[in-house]
Amino acid sequence: MSTVGAGIPEPPREEPNSAWLTDQELEWARGRIPLLYVEAVPVRVDGLGVVTQVGVLLRANAAGEITRTLVSGRVMYGETIRDALFRHLEKDLGAMAFPLLPASPVPFQVAEYFPIPGLSAYLDERQHAVSLAFVVPVTGTCEPRQDALEITWVTPAEASSAAFHAELEGGRGTLLRAALASVGVLG
Amino acid sequence: MSTVGAGIPEPPREEPNSAWLTDQELEWARGRIPLLYVEAVPVRVDGLGVVTQVGVLLRANAAGEITRTLVSGRVMYGETIRDALFRHLEKDLGAMAFPLLPASPVPFQVAEYFPIPGLSAYLDERQHAVSLAFVVPVTGTCEPRQDALEITWVTPAEASSAAFHAELEGGRGTLLRAALASVGVLG
Amino acid sequence: MSTVGAGIPEPPREEPNSAWLTDQELEWARGRIPLLYVEAVPVRVDGLGVVTQVGVLLRANAAGEITRTLVSGRVMYGETIRDALFRHLEKDLGAMAFPLLPASPVPFQVAEYFPIPGLSAYLDERQHAVSLAFVVPVTGTCEPRQDALEITWVTPAEASSAAFHAELEGGRGTLLRAALASVGVLG
Amino acid sequence: MSTVGAGIPEPPREEPNSAWLTDQELEWARGRIPLLYVEAVPVRVDGLGVVTQVGVLLRANAAGEITRTLVSGRVMYGETIRDALFRHLEKDLGAMAFPLLPASPVPFQVAEYFPIPGLSAYLDERQHAVSLAFVVPVTGTCEPRQDALEITWVTPAEASSAAFHAELEGGRGTLLRAALASVGVLG
Repeated sequence: MSTVGAGIPEPPREEPNSAWLTDQELEWARGRIPLLYVEAVPVRVDGLGVVTQVGVLLRANAAGEITRTLVSGRVMYGETIRDALFRHLEKDLGAMAFPLLPASPVPFQVAEYFPIPGLSAYLDERQHAVSLAFVVPVTGTCEPRQDALEITWVTPAEASSAAFHAELEGGRGTLLRAALASVGVLG
Repeated sequence: MSTVGAGIPEPPREEPNSAWLTDQELEWARGRIPLLYVEAVPVRVDGLGVVTQVGVLLRANAAGEITRTLVSGRVMYGETIRDALFRHLEKDLGAMAFPLLPASPVPFQVAEYFPIPGLSAYLDERQHAVSLAFVVPVTGTCEPRQDALEITWVTPAEASSAAFHAELEGGRGTLLRAALASVGVLG
Repeated sequence: MSTVGAGIPEPPREEPNSAWLTDQELEWARGRIPLLYVEAVPVRVDGLGVVTQVGVLLRANAAGEITRTLVSGRVMYGETIRDALFRHLEKDLGAMAFPLLPASPVPFQVAEYFPIPGLSAYLDERQHAVSLAFVVPVTGTCEPRQDALEITWVTPAEASSAAFHAELEGGRGTLLRAALASVGVLG
Repeated sequence: MSTVGAGIPEPPREEPNSAWLTDQELEWARGRIPLLYVEAVPVRVDGLGVVTQVGVLLRANAAGEITRTLVSGRVMYGETIRDALFRHLEKDLGAMAFPLLPASPVPFQVAEYFPIPGLSAYLDERQHAVSLAFVVPVTGTCEPRQDALEITWVTPAEASSAAFHAELEGGRGTLLRAALASVGVLG
């Protein structure tokens, strides 16, 4: 059994880029420490850089419901934000998405997820997570892997609507609208 | 003794706004999880918002050497970034600094500190820390408390110089220059 | 009569901070040159910098209709963006508004107004204008002067609504929503 | 001869994307109206978006001296900022540069050039110009055309140095350093 302090368990680092914490350790951390996440809004742009399409994931959540969400995941110990962003884009969009990561490391928004509602626009029942969110143009073919069922592409106008907004989980409708605003296409 | 999982230790929360993790727990986390920090560059501005002075702290580091540094500290579990920023500004500049926190939650830069050099411009031997950095105008009187020995105010031109740059610990000279650039006064 | 080239007319600069171009000259420029504007969304913030209220102007437009709009005006020859921003804030909100101009000269959005619809989200029948838009906290009392009839303060949630959006002229509903997104309070 | 008001001269619009104002008209405007410019710092990025090289132009200025400068040019009447940016990148880097224009229309910096020194960090003896500056990754082959003699590629570290800084005309060393800071590679 895991113990803290003398007898600190070594996380299973022989599996690179997978879980670096045991389930128990992660559970412990989720109740003690704000965890760092990255999120990405994949977009398609035209030749002048104008966003023409916005990618949103369809996913089954823990309760088995189908919800819309964004590319998202935890930053691991020792991993740069760019590496984490690339890893989660590949995990959610497949190896042929060819994302163009931003030259700037500054996110368009910082989303603060709390386990109880009301502290911010964002809710994550599992944990206190702070997410650095980026708009990422993709130039290849997106084929969701793992738990993402499907990626749907919508126009900026559709993605701006209140109805669409409500379909995203955990307040990510707000984050999506901030993404659209940051690239000048919020309707 | 602390254990993970069943028997999770309750952090000593009877001490508000101090350590929410035991030393052992923090030590464990520092080797497993990227920790979230905020940093602030306090400035004085004129009536049009132009930065006229930049505040830098003089502090004794763990090795007993006097170094220059910025306002900095960890974001606690359950704490918003704004609350953390305010708490660390008060801790380092005193209760009469009257900081004007930014309306925007987006930092001017994200600094990634790693315990080994070469992964980024930033180094923190203790841990992997990701720091959201803000320029914060202060309107009151700054009187450092705790471990900060002194705050010195310099002009943007002085703060831009390579010599000054080299006096800041852990790569924060780079962060200070990015701060100056973000407000249009990097020399 | 005004001529171009030899015999260039001197603009009436004895009237500081008023019209630096004659009506004829301005009319000529409006059909030939993109004109530089600044716009401001005045806000009230709480002690942690969170936007709690958003100020919108009620104004009679050229057609005599009452419309909602933002603080806005042209940048004059020889004038800095900060000076222009301060001048138009004072013109529209009065001398006691005490605006806190941003330390950063980078706008939250660049709005491109064209005289014909469809080129962008923004429309200005008089001209091609490019506007640098800023969120500006005000700390004093706002008493509109000149052609602004009234300033109304609304919550971020009200300002985020589609209904409110539609009441703003020239596409400024889009700009207002981008302003709210930039400070993390777009509903 | 050109006159203002009645008898407004029609600019020679049969030449698309060239001069839309006569020399006399431009001369007149330069002394009366802040002119809108775009500037670009071309960069090469690695697979994770990190800037690895920075492109700077070598150009003969009006006095016949060889100076370093950035991609730069005026925004025409009726032209979007993206169109202007693309046009000037093509003019200065050739048709095979394949620039990736930013999805966000917000510049990393706004540079205010005045004809007399001391009002800002930027100087342009000809005019009052306000320049929206962008970092633009290029993926193709750059072959300067027109008045640009050559493009040289340097590392971010070289571009950060004070010596390099001093070789850029009109204060653009400051702008280049702000560009490097905005993408996290200012040394």
